[in-house]
Order: sequence, then C-alpha cells, then structure tokens
Amino acid sequence: MGAESSKKSSPKASAPTKVHIADQEITWTNWYQHVNWLNITLIVAIPIIGLYYSMYTPLYRKTAIWAVLYYFATGFGITAGYHRCWAHCSYTATLPLKIFLAAVGGGAVEGSIRWWSRDHRAHHRYTDTDKDPYSVRKGLLYSHLGWMVMKQNPKRIGRTDISDLNEDSVVVWQHKNYLTVVIFMGLIFPALVAGLGWGDYLGGFVYAGILRIFFVQQATFCVNSLAHWLGEQPFDDRNSPRDHIITALVTLGEGYHNFHHEFPSDYRNAIEWFQYDPTKWFIWTMKQLGLAYDLKQFRTNEIEKGRLQQQQKKLDRIRARLDWGIQLENLPVMEFEEFQEQARNGRALITVAGVVHDMTSFIKDHPGGKAMINSGIGKDATAMFNGGVYNHSNAAHNLLSNFRVAVIRGGCEVEIWKQAQRENKDVEAITD
Amino acid sequence: MGAESSKKSSPKASAPTKVHIADQEITWTNWYQHVNWLNITLIVAIPIIGLYYSMYTPLYRKTAIWAVLYYFATGFGITAGYHRCWAHCSYTATLPLKIFLAAVGGGAVEGSIRWWSRDHRAHHRYTDTDKDPYSVRKGLLYSHLGWMVMKQNPKRIGRTDISDLNEDSVVVWQHKNYLTVVIFMGLIFPALVAGLGWGDYLGGFVYAGILRIFFVQQATFCVNSLAHWLGEQPFDDRNSPRDHIITALVTLGEGYHNFHHEFPSDYRNAIEWFQYDPTKWFIWTMKQLGLAYDLKQFRTNEIEKGRLQQQQKKLDRIRARLDWGIQLENLPVMEFEEFQEQARNGRALITVAGVVHDMTSFIKDHPGGKAMINSGIGKDATAMFNGGVYNHSNAAHNLLSNFRVAVIRGGCEVEIWKQAQRENKDVEAITD
Ligand code: HEM
Ligand code: HEM
Ligand SMILES: [Fe+2]
Ligand SMILES: [Fe+2]
Ligand SMILES: [Fe+2]
Ligand SMILES: [Fe+2]
Repeated sequence: MGAESSKKSSPKASAPTKVHIADQEITWTNWYQHVNWLNITLIVAIPIIGLYYSMYTPLYRKTAIWAVLYYFATGFGITAGYHRCWAHCSYTATLPLKIFLAAVGGGAVEGSIRWWSRDHRAHHRYTDTDKDPYSVRKGLLYSHLGWMVMKQNPKRIGRTDISDLNEDSVVVWQHKNYLTVVIFMGLIFPALVAGLGWGDYLGGFVYAGILRIFFVQQATFCVNSLAHWLGEQPFDDRNSPRDHIITALVTLGEGYHNFHHEFPSDYRNAIEWFQYDPTKWFIWTMKQLGLAYDLKQFRTNEIEKGRLQQQQKKLDRIRARLDWGIQLENLPVMEFEEFQEQARNGRALITVAGVVHDMTSFIKDHPGGKAMINSGIGKDATAMFNGGVYNHSNAAHNLLSNFRVAVIRGGCEVEIWKQAQRENKDVEAITD
Repeated sequence: MGAESSKKSSPKASAPTKVHIADQEITWTNWYQHVNWLNITLIVAIPIIGLYYSMYTPLYRKTAIWAVLYYFATGFGITAGYHRCWAHCSYTATLPLKIFLAAVGGGAVEGSIRWWSRDHRAHHRYTDTDKDPYSVRKGLLYSHLGWMVMKQNPKRIGRTDISDLNEDSVVVWQHKNYLTVVIFMGLIFPALVAGLGWGDYLGGFVYAGILRIFFVQQATFCVNSLAHWLGEQPFDDRNSPRDHIITALVTLGEGYHNFHHEFPSDYRNAIEWFQYDPTKWFIWTMKQLGLAYDLKQFRTNEIEKGRLQQQQKKLDRIRARLDWGIQLENLPVMEFEEFQEQARNGRALITVAGVVHDMTSFIKDHPGGKAMINSGIGKDATAMFNGGVYNHSNAAHNLLSNFRVAVIRGGCEVEIWKQAQRENKDVEAITD
C-alpha cells in the first residue's frame, strides 16, 4: 500500500505543478502577488479613507452614541454569534437571535460565519501549528493581521468538521448573500439609522459605518494576537493561549483565553463574577429572554482539576531545580558502633531517622543554640528532633538533608534494639 | 526511678500550696490582684499623662524631628538589638554597637534584654501553646498587651537556654542597672538633647520622651499580635505567624513573620529587595561600617524548599476535595468482546487506555462535534484520543474519568493482540 501510493505520487512530485504563491519566496518582482488586495482594502484602505472623511464630517452627539452602540452590537455579533454560538456551539440560539447575530456579525466585516468558524475550529484543533490559520508562533503581527493581509495557501489550513454549519439555514443564507449583508449591515444600515433618525446620513456612514468597522475589527483581531501573547496560563502552558484583563477589556470578554482553549464549549470565558465578560452577560440575558437555551458549562470540579494540575506542574518544575541533598540510596552504610566511635572522636555526627548527619558546620548557626544541638551528638536524636525536646519546623527538616553523610545499618530503631539485646531480651538479630 | 520521683512529688501535690494568682478566677474581690500595676503604669498611665501634658506643651519643629529620629533609634534598639541580635543571634555586634543597642533598646521601655529575650525564645520554641508567653491563641489583645497588663504565672512560661546571654557583659550590665537605663534613656536623655540643643527641655521630655515611648511600645507590640493574626502563610500554616506589609510598615520590618518563625536566625525578615525591612538595612549598614559581622542567612535553596512544600500542601488539600472519578480498582472487568457487543447494541462505550467509558451523556456536548466522538464508539480510541485524530487537552483527559464504567481485561493493547491472533501470528494467549 505504502509503495503503491509513493509510486502514484512520484510523477506528481517531479512534474512542475504550480506552487501556491504563499509557498514562494517574496521578491521585488512578486510581492504584489503575495498581498491579499481585497483584505487590504477592507482592513486598511477603507479605514484610512474613513479617517480622511472624518476630518470633514462633523460628529454629532447622537451619532457618536449610535456608533458606540453599534460597535457593541456588531462586536457581540462576532463574540456571542460567530465565536461562541457557531464556532463552538456553546449554547443554542433561537431563530430570531440567530438572524440578529448573523446580521450584526456581518456588519463587523470579518467574513461569513461559515468561513470564520471553519478557520476558528482549525485554530483550536491545530493551535500553534502550521495548520493553525493564525498561529502566533509566526509572529504577533501575523496572528493579528498578517494572515489576512497576505495570501495564504488554503490547503495549509487544517481541515475541520463543519457539517453542523452546513445544515444551519441562517449560516448558509448569510454565506451565500455575504456581499449584500456586509454592505448593508456594515455601511448602509448604520447610515440609515442616523439619517432617518436625526438626519445625519453622512455622519452615520463615516462614524457608525467606516470607523466603527475599523475599531470592531481591530478589537476582535486581538483575540487571535493579544490573547495568545499577553498574560497568565492558569490551566495549561503547553500552548500559547493566555488570560489577561486587558485583552478581555478590548474584546468584549474574550480575554480569558487560556481557559477558553481548555474549555472551548463553555459559554463563559470568564468564570469569576468579578471578571469582565460582557459576552457572557449578553448570552445569559438572552437566555432570560427565552432567546437562547442549553448554555453549556463545564463543572467547577473539572475546571479546578485543570487549574490544580497546572499549578502542580509549576511546583514540580521548581522542585526539580532545587537541591534536596544526596539521595539516601547513594549514601554509604555505617554501623551504629562506628557512628558512635566517630562522634566520640570529635566528629559532630547526629543520627535522625536512620540517617547520619555531620553537623560540624552548622553547630554555631543552630537557632536553638549550641548546647541543644551538641546534646544530640553521637546519639539517635530522632525523638529529640521531632518533638521530644523541640518539634522542629519544616525548614529544619529540609536543612537536615544538606548534612547527610551515611545511613545506619538497621535504621533508626537500632538503639532500642541494641538496648534490648544488652538486656538479653528476645530480639532477633538482623544481619544481612 | 519513675516510681521514686512520683513518691517524692505526691506529698507536695496533696499539700494545699498557694495557687498563683494568675491561675485563680477573676472575681469582683480579687481583680486588682490580677492586674500588673507596674506595667499598667508604664504602658497605659504614663502615655495618658503625656497626652495630657502635650496639650499644654508647644511642639517645636526641631523637637518633632528629634522625636521621630529617636523613635527610630529606640525602635532599632528593639528590632535590631533585642530581637535579631540577642534573642536570635542572627549576627554578631561589636562592643560599641552592643552598647548603643542596649542603651536605645532600654529607652524603648520594654524590659531588659535578658528578660525580653528569654520570653521571646520561649515564644519561638513554644509558639501558640500555653508555654508561649504571648500566645495569640489567647486572643489578639492578650498577645498585644494583656500578657503584660495582667499578672502571669512565671512557671507557666516555657524554659529556654539563655546561657549565652548570661555570658554577655552588656546584657548583664543592662539587666542589673535596668531602672537607671530606662529612666535615663527613656526620659532624661531625649529631654537633654532637646534642652541642650535648642532649649526645649519640656518638649523633649513630653514628645521625644513620654509620647515617643508610647508609639515605640505599641509598634513593637504589634510583632506579637498583628504578626500572628494578619496576612499570608507562605512557609508554614500549622502555626499562627503571618506575613503582611502593614505589620512590616508598623514594626520597622518585622512583618514577614511567617518567614521569621521558620528561619529565626536569618538576620533578614524580608527576603525580597522590594519588601520593607529597615531593620535589615540597618544591620547591613552596620556591617559596612565594620560594627557588625557574621550576618546569618539561610540558603535560598532552603527557603524555596519551604515555600514549595507549603504550596504543595495547599494543592494536596484542594486535590483531596475534588472528584477524580471512580478508582480503577473499583471498576468491574469487562471482556473486549462484551464491550464491542454492548456498543453495537447502542450503548455509547469508548475504550481509552484500557478503561471503558460510557459517553452517552457527553456526545451532544463534545467540543469536537458528534461525528468525531461517535467514530470512537465500540473501539479502543486511545490513539485517536491522544493525537491520532486530536491531541486532547488536559481538561479532556480529566473529563474522561467522569465516565468510567469498566476496565478491559488485558488492557489497552488488546485490540492489536486480537488482530494478530486473527492473522494467526505467534502471540501468547494471556488468560488468567
Ligand atoms: C540535628 C540537626 C538540627 C538541625 C538542622 C536543627 C535546626 C534547627 C532550626 C532550623 C531551628 C529554627 C527554628 C525551627 O526550626 O523551628 C531550630 C531550633 C531549635 N532547635 Fe534545632 N536543629 C537540630 C538539632 C537539634 C537538637 C538535637 C536539639 C535538641 C536536643 C535542637 C533543639 C532546638 C530548639 C530548642 C530550637 C528552638 C530555638 C528557638 O526557637 O528559640 N535542635 N533547630
Ligand atoms: C472519549 C471521550 C472524549 C472526550 C471526553 C472528549 C473531550 C473533548 C474536549 C474537552 C475537547 C475540547 C478541547 C480540548 O480538549 O482540547 C475536545 C475536542 C475535540 N475532540 Fe474530543 N473527546 C472525546 C473523544 C473524542 C474522539 C474519539 C475524537 C475523534 C475521534 C475527538 C475529537 C476531538 C476534536 C477534533 C476536538 C477539537 C475540536 C475543536 O477544538 O474545534 N474527541 N474533545
Ligand atoms: Fe485562540
Ligand atoms: Fe474559540
Ligand atoms: Fe512571633
Ligand atoms: Fe523572633
């Protein structure tokens, strides 16, 4: 089978098939072919034009408020609609809500639901790999804009299952009529509202239309860039997603992105009440209004397990870096007599829990004083050390491991055993 | 031996020996005997008198500055002198520095070095027990003032080794001449400086003397109260000591008290450069001036070990509270054929790593979609789950344990083994 397929592909490999432009090097002669001119127009050129016109267009208070409101509406179209409803099915929207989200989401000018969700599922499934359409490993700017502004080989992007979207009539309709939706919801509708409402067609077009598009785009693009670059990783640090309040503020609550990549089908991004996640509040409100149902949520138990394991990972890393003394199995074995002998001859040896410690360098530093520690020399000080005289702190226990020099044959009960033997009691002699 | 000593003590126990006042109940007729009137005078009455006089004493700028300076000097007498030098021997002071510290420490009016250090050593050795002279377990107010204001049975307080202090001539001299030292350094000296310096004898007496004593006392008493009550426990939470910046600000840097109880002979209380520990800075400066040496310091490795273990303890507590699914040893064993049979009959069973999971309730919630998870039903999906199709997150691995229903006899390699058997390969039949 393997041989067969390689035979089949070999003529293909040798034939000079057309290499996709994205896989060719950028040169002085082909650079313009690398650029996605449509996207450059939508993302860069139009905002510049809008900025130019805004200098000649007075901004009325009503139009300003409308622009901000429409900014939030179209933002929710992306976050609550495109992202949490369609890409992740984290809740179910009723038809009226779907139509609303598909409309205002279209007004954000970020592609159709179908196209956006396909790419986004690939982003989750292949995060940080070459199959991730906006992998941050290719640079922050690439993940923010570059992937749209430069042409991409569509074959590179990981495949995902979007059969559910193909069965969703709202998604299919929006995809088919995408150009109409974009022009109407992106530009005409905001102009109409301002025009029919208070006669400011031009202001509505420039501020609630063009410039608002720019802000919504840049804000939501941050989910692909900033959210993979800035902040903490409380649930998993193997990949790039991160949690940060700044990202959340910019992206209507999509800033708890480490959580989100771990629990993508949770309708929440922020799990604490004090974190900023207006998209979650929006979805919750829709539920109260009967417009959304089946809000999915991972159990707190599962979330806490994830957090715990990540913290454990961090601790284990620290633990591995620290010095825990010579391993017991690498220490020489010493007879209790020899230990006593050496201690009598002036070596400051103390046995604790079957391990011989040379305390010479520590005696003068002992926080409990010289007399105390000296009283343990040549003895099995296990009981003294563990509360008999003083119940030493954790720090003291740790410190001990620095001074290990040997282990006692027979372990820490050796003294009791010797004692019993001397008294001719019935003790089995342990020899090995 | 044991029998002998109990015989000796028995007449003593039965004889009606005088019970110490502290061990008697407080009543309307004996309450005044419970009060330590000397300490009430030193700690409560004198400050009130000072406050009264201050209303009739103008406060000059020079005197105010002098009072603050002398506040710091006498404060360091306690923190750098009494506490870190004598009680804990965390560094060695030269004779001139010792004399300075014994003098200004006396000016703080908190008892002699010898008395203070003995109690403080008992406090460390018997922290939070009845033998602790100022155990916070008896109440915040008790640990702050109560233990001085009310009479204590001296026999109750734990015994400690102060042989080193009895050999220190400065300590012995200060103890013998304590009353002289207190009156001179506490009241006369501050009055003299202000009087001879700028003619303000009365101001020096009231502000740099009486009122300054009150502030220094209350501030340093906080080490016994606030430092055992407010803040975090990064090194050990079995006892009461805590770390808090507020305590540090009030006590010239003695606020990192959880660290201090764990590493009492470290000349530092704060280990980070950005934490407030002026006493540490003072000692360090003395070292630069050649007035102090042998500054003791625990290795960072030891400190980090302590911090790590405390964090581990916290994690282990959380871990114990969480639900980790049914233990593998409590699951029934299932033949692979039976597993396949049940799956064919409509039960959504999936095997991962030798464990059978019933995914019925989860299929509709699967973030990777229904199709994907359905493709694993009736199969050993270990490879699929672990990267073959999708490399699942940590959260997904955790989630699995919720759905455990059985373990496969022979474990997860059973399919490969069956396959090989069908193909009549040489595989040993494992039966048990
Ligand atoms: C054998 C190695 C020893 C080490 C590494 C060691 C270490 C320490 C350390 C780090 C402390 C500081 C406070 C604490 O941990 O709670 C301490 C305090 C103390 N140690 Fe040890 N110690 C040793 C042996 C002994 C022995 C044999 C005795 C008594 C027979 C003893 C008696 C004390 C006492 C009474 C204190 C309390 C001092 C105070 O807080 O004022 N130590 N020791
Ligand atoms: C057997 C129990 C299963 C559980 C508990 C489970 C759980 C999960 C969870 C929690 C996620 C969210 C993202 C992540 O963890 O990285 C996920 C995503 C995914 N799962 Fe599963 N899964 C199971 C089985 C399967 C199987 C058998 C397949 C494929 C044959 C599969 C394919 C996928 C894919 C492709 C994704 C990525 C979806 C995306 O992010 O867009 N899963 N799964
Ligand atoms: Fe992401
Ligand atoms: Fe997502
Ligand atoms: Fe303390
Ligand atoms: Fe202390």
